[in-house]
Amino acid sequence: MEIAFEKSDGLVPAIIQHRRTGEVLMLGFMNSEALAETRRTGEAVFFSRSRKRLWKKGESSGHVLRVLEIRIDCDADALLLRVEPLGPGVCHKGYRSCFFRRLEENGSLRTLEERSFDPAKVYALEKEQ
Amino acid sequence: MEIAFEKSDGLVPAIIQHRRTGEVLMLGFMNSEALAETRRTGEAVFFSRSRKRLWKKGESSGHVLRVLEIRIDCDADALLLRVEPLGPGVCHKGYRSCFFRRLEENGSLRTLEERSFDPAKVYALEKEQ
Repeated sequence: MEIAFEKSDGLVPAIIQHRRTGEVLMLGFMNSEALAETRRTGEAVFFSRSRKRLWKKGESSGHVLRVLEIRIDCDADALLLRVEPLGPGVCHKGYRSCFFRRLEENGSLRTLEERSFDPAKVYALEKEQ
Repeated sequence: MEIAFEKSDGLVPAIIQHRRTGEVLMLGFMNSEALAETRRTGEAVFFSRSRKRLWKKGESSGHVLRVLEIRIDCDADALLLRVEPLGPGVCHKGYRSCFFRRLEENGSLRTLEERSFDPAKVYALEKEQ
């Protein structure tokens, strides 16, 4: 199993999809260490490009992603993780999915979902993403 | 509408999801020009990191992605395109989805799908990705 981490500075995009509903929940990046930790623990661990360190999804919120399946694309430079998300939503802004906005024809953004939790109560100390 | 293209050298990942089935089909990268072309034409255009130019998905295969909806994540650094794919599959290796392999616990890769078309007949001159 060889993943093309070198194509983009050691990081590959990892799509997070709800295994049951098919909803795309978020996208993170993984280096080889993050992928190894994810496989070892069965819970998603990413590499934060801004903080330059590993972060486990849910480390402050408790909203862990239980990884049920890892898929790899044809060029081995992107991952698809099919997960069971624990908690009411994955987005640090309080939504079920980070992709809660649609780009409209006129360039405006339209919010499509209601918040599923109050992020101020969940992210007391730290912004996750 | 401001997308954080600067976070990774002018490119943001664009997840391609089948609008009807929810299946994640592929992941490409877009710069601002690729996104503008996609919006103008209604068909997905990416930026190829290897060829350093725009490429329209389907330019050699005819397997165009008709874009029905564009979503943006909370940090505006990833896109989710919900599409209707034209043709039997999006993968240049002949599969419906580029994510046709699963990473098993022992590190091996297992192919989960049957080929939906013969790539040798479709990609006569050029590898798309």
